[in-house]
Amino acid sequence: MNNQLDRNSDIPLYQQIEQIIKEKILKGEWPVGTKIPSQRKLASIFCVNRSTVTAAIDELTAEGLLEGKRGGGTKVTKYTWSGLASGPALDWTSYVRSGIHRPNSLTIQEINRQEVKKEIIRLGTGELSPELLPYRDMKTILRHAEAEKLTLGYEEPKGNRYTREVIKDRLEQKGVSVSPDSILIVSGALQALQLISIGLLKRKSAVLTERPSYLYSLHVFQSMEMKLCGIPADEKGLDPAVIPACKKQCGADLLYTIPTFHNPTGRQMTEERKKELIRISKQQCLPIIEDDAYGDLWIDGPPSPPLKAFDQDGNVLYVGTLSKTVSPGLRIGWVAGPEPVIERLADIKMQTDYGSSSLSQWAAAKWMESGLYEKNLARIRNKLKIRRDTALRCLEAHCEGIASWEKPSGGFYIWVTFHKPLQIHTLFEKALKKNILINPGTLYDQEARQSIRLSYSYASLSDLEKGIRTIAELARELM
Amino acid sequence: MNNQLDRNSDIPLYQQIEQIIKEKILKGEWPVGTKIPSQRKLASIFCVNRSTVTAAIDELTAEGLLEGKRGGGTKVTKYTWSGLASGPALDWTSYVRSGIHRPNSLTIQEINRQEVKKEIIRLGTGELSPELLPYRDMKTILRHAEAEKLTLGYEEPKGNRYTREVIKDRLEQKGVSVSPDSILIVSGALQALQLISIGLLKRKSAVLTERPSYLYSLHVFQSMEMKLCGIPADEKGLDPAVIPACKKQCGADLLYTIPTFHNPTGRQMTEERKKELIRISKQQCLPIIEDDAYGDLWIDGPPSPPLKAFDQDGNVLYVGTLSKTVSPGLRIGWVAGPEPVIERLADIKMQTDYGSSSLSQWAAAKWMESGLYEKNLARIRNKLKIRRDTALRCLEAHCEGIASWEKPSGGFYIWVTFHKPLQIHTLFEKALKKNILINPGTLYDQEARQSIRLSYSYASLSDLEKGIRTIAELARELM
Repeated sequence: MNNQLDRNSDIPLYQQIEQIIKEKILKGEWPVGTKIPSQRKLASIFCVNRSTVTAAIDELTAEGLLEGKRGGGTKVTKYTWSGLASGPALDWTSYVRSGIHRPNSLTIQEINRQEVKKEIIRLGTGELSPELLPYRDMKTILRHAEAEKLTLGYEEPKGNRYTREVIKDRLEQKGVSVSPDSILIVSGALQALQLISIGLLKRKSAVLTERPSYLYSLHVFQSMEMKLCGIPADEKGLDPAVIPACKKQCGADLLYTIPTFHNPTGRQMTEERKKELIRISKQQCLPIIEDDAYGDLWIDGPPSPPLKAFDQDGNVLYVGTLSKTVSPGLRIGWVAGPEPVIERLADIKMQTDYGSSSLSQWAAAKWMESGLYEKNLARIRNKLKIRRDTALRCLEAHCEGIASWEKPSGGFYIWVTFHKPLQIHTLFEKALKKNILINPGTLYDQEARQSIRLSYSYASLSDLEKGIRTIAELARELM
Repeated sequence: MNNQLDRNSDIPLYQQIEQIIKEKILKGEWPVGTKIPSQRKLASIFCVNRSTVTAAIDELTAEGLLEGKRGGGTKVTKYTWSGLASGPALDWTSYVRSGIHRPNSLTIQEINRQEVKKEIIRLGTGELSPELLPYRDMKTILRHAEAEKLTLGYEEPKGNRYTREVIKDRLEQKGVSVSPDSILIVSGALQALQLISIGLLKRKSAVLTERPSYLYSLHVFQSMEMKLCGIPADEKGLDPAVIPACKKQCGADLLYTIPTFHNPTGRQMTEERKKELIRISKQQCLPIIEDDAYGDLWIDGPPSPPLKAFDQDGNVLYVGTLSKTVSPGLRIGWVAGPEPVIERLADIKMQTDYGSSSLSQWAAAKWMESGLYEKNLARIRNKLKIRRDTALRCLEAHCEGIASWEKPSGGFYIWVTFHKPLQIHTLFEKALKKNILINPGTLYDQEARQSIRLSYSYASLSDLEKGIRTIAELARELM
């Protein structure tokens, strides 16, 4: 809205702001019942003093377009020019509140809002830093666009055939042998979970997962009335031995795991555990979703093969993605599993978005078959090593004695646990006041009130150093 | 699977086929309980005689890997090498059957299966013919990829800012005035409906829509336990006067309409009706989803402005897309509506697929701001005019006296209703035997047992001629 202000105009700024807000209300962009942004936020949007905003709001309130609610901010009232004569107005608020899918948690909403700010140091962000993203190579691929391999029409339900063949080849290199018919291309790994939640499970189903887990920070299963049941994990990954009891207790229908470079703990499941997990899955007739988003991002040496490589019975749905290695914006991931399951998921995908972008599918194939993917990986692994080592060095320098952590051998994350209780949300807020954004452990496990997920993939080296030092200072104060 | 056969090998083909199927079973791609393709289908997949397939299946059955079910086809049995010692195997079939989201209707599944065949004449397909898709222009856009406008990271929750500004400009040309903050970029119009279904409505909600309607062919609302209530329409579009009674009767929470070049009837709502619909929507506090997928595809002259242009209260969620005009594979559409609603839908989109492909969003902006979009539209309108006129001429030549239809002035469809009762599914099957694929009216309205949706956008002119002639002959036989 800021660029609608004319600072050279004779009309005072508060009147211009009044007019802009009035238009939003009268055009129905801010319908009746809408809580408008706070005065502080409006002042920051318009780059004006708060008193200017207050003057505009006062005018609009006097005109009967806005109404101040005690403690509830300012809302658009029913008394609008167009609404005056025609009785009650449509109440969108009740629609927004009553939808089936849960809103993101307030902490995640706050993180989403804050992380767009330029001055913020993002210590929790689970993505590659913009400086690590391969803009030049993507440009090269696009420049050589050969129209004959491009599809502009709808793709097959499982996704572009050629792209699936390229994915098949990559999986083979990891010891996972599947045919292209057993692969579904999806718009990122998260969509795979979304499709599984509405495609394979009943309402009230239960899903087992490591605790803490990335899965707790999503609402993908919970929005379909499903519950998550946490199972313990140690530095070798989740403990398969407890699965039979856990499964019985909560009636689990599925197990979700990130065996390699776990989110948020950074841990790696050992090969022995993987084999044991496969054995238990078979014995318990318990399907597994293996999320391998980080598997290619090893730092100290290649990890053992994915769970799927040990699965002879089709009990594992394997999920992969290019989001963490090439480009999150590409929105390309894949699921590999038994054909009837893949066909069911493909049918639902067609029914919800008619398939993933053919442009992205084409680019994904180009990345992988041209060799640029491997070249890019080698570069990123080097950079991640430097970043991880810097983060560890900073932790040793500033958090020795007040927190513990493990050294991850790949992926993006270090799970830092403070030795003494502290108000993790206060730490979050105090850090934010110093322009540092952290992901509290409670996002991944309600009980993890002394932990944070530290990501070394996003912030610059100097910001990592500065951020970790500041967090350590704040934590010391709070403990 | 076909390309796995080695026709020069000394190993007989049936043994090779046996081996291929065995691997699929032992690797878990066809898990226990999977119904394998019919012998006829396998013969066609492998390009061999059916007897060769039978020999392979017999071997596998003797080995205990397959089991023939009377009337139920052939299934993978529990008795596999790996399964022998370990009790019951995981039953994926029950997962596939118990998911929340409904499978596509059997007719649509059959259409999806058949339409990939080269020899099929597609008289029902709702997309542009490959020969109409702008491959050259897309190539030009990609070749000029300027890295600075490309995003490889995640986009903002509502989608790329610049793309939303370009969409805002286009909407303004249609008389729709919204700010970029009130626009959400989605992966095609269908995803907009999916997000609305899980984002704004309770379970058991009811949605009003024209009958027949495209919406009946989807399960997007029904899968969330919502019901559709049909309202009558005539050549001027749906009749707003009946809405109060319909709303009361079924307790409707939303109205979905395709006012311009309706799918499947091709009808155009008059401006008078649009204004009346807006008035009724306001009076009844009934939000409207306006699906404007076809609005740019006028043939005889521009249509009246969209409903959204008459909406002063933010009661209309406007849905647009590039799928019908540029490329379905691009998967780019948009929703424009009140900001709180758009924010809610954006939050859910982030939770289900983290946003649409940034590559596609970038290409979409390029299409619209470069002028290529308008140039392409002009070309397509000309082509559609020729196609529509050919279809009408063929209908007059072959269906005069046995069916009636209206002349559409834009879009893709002619709704053809036969004068006498006939078994529409028999017509579908008999046409399919002659390699012609039609969309029965019952997909869009259970009661429309004498109608078909004829699309002139996909088949070539000669196929349109041949197809319509054949359908007329078959219908005459059946009536």
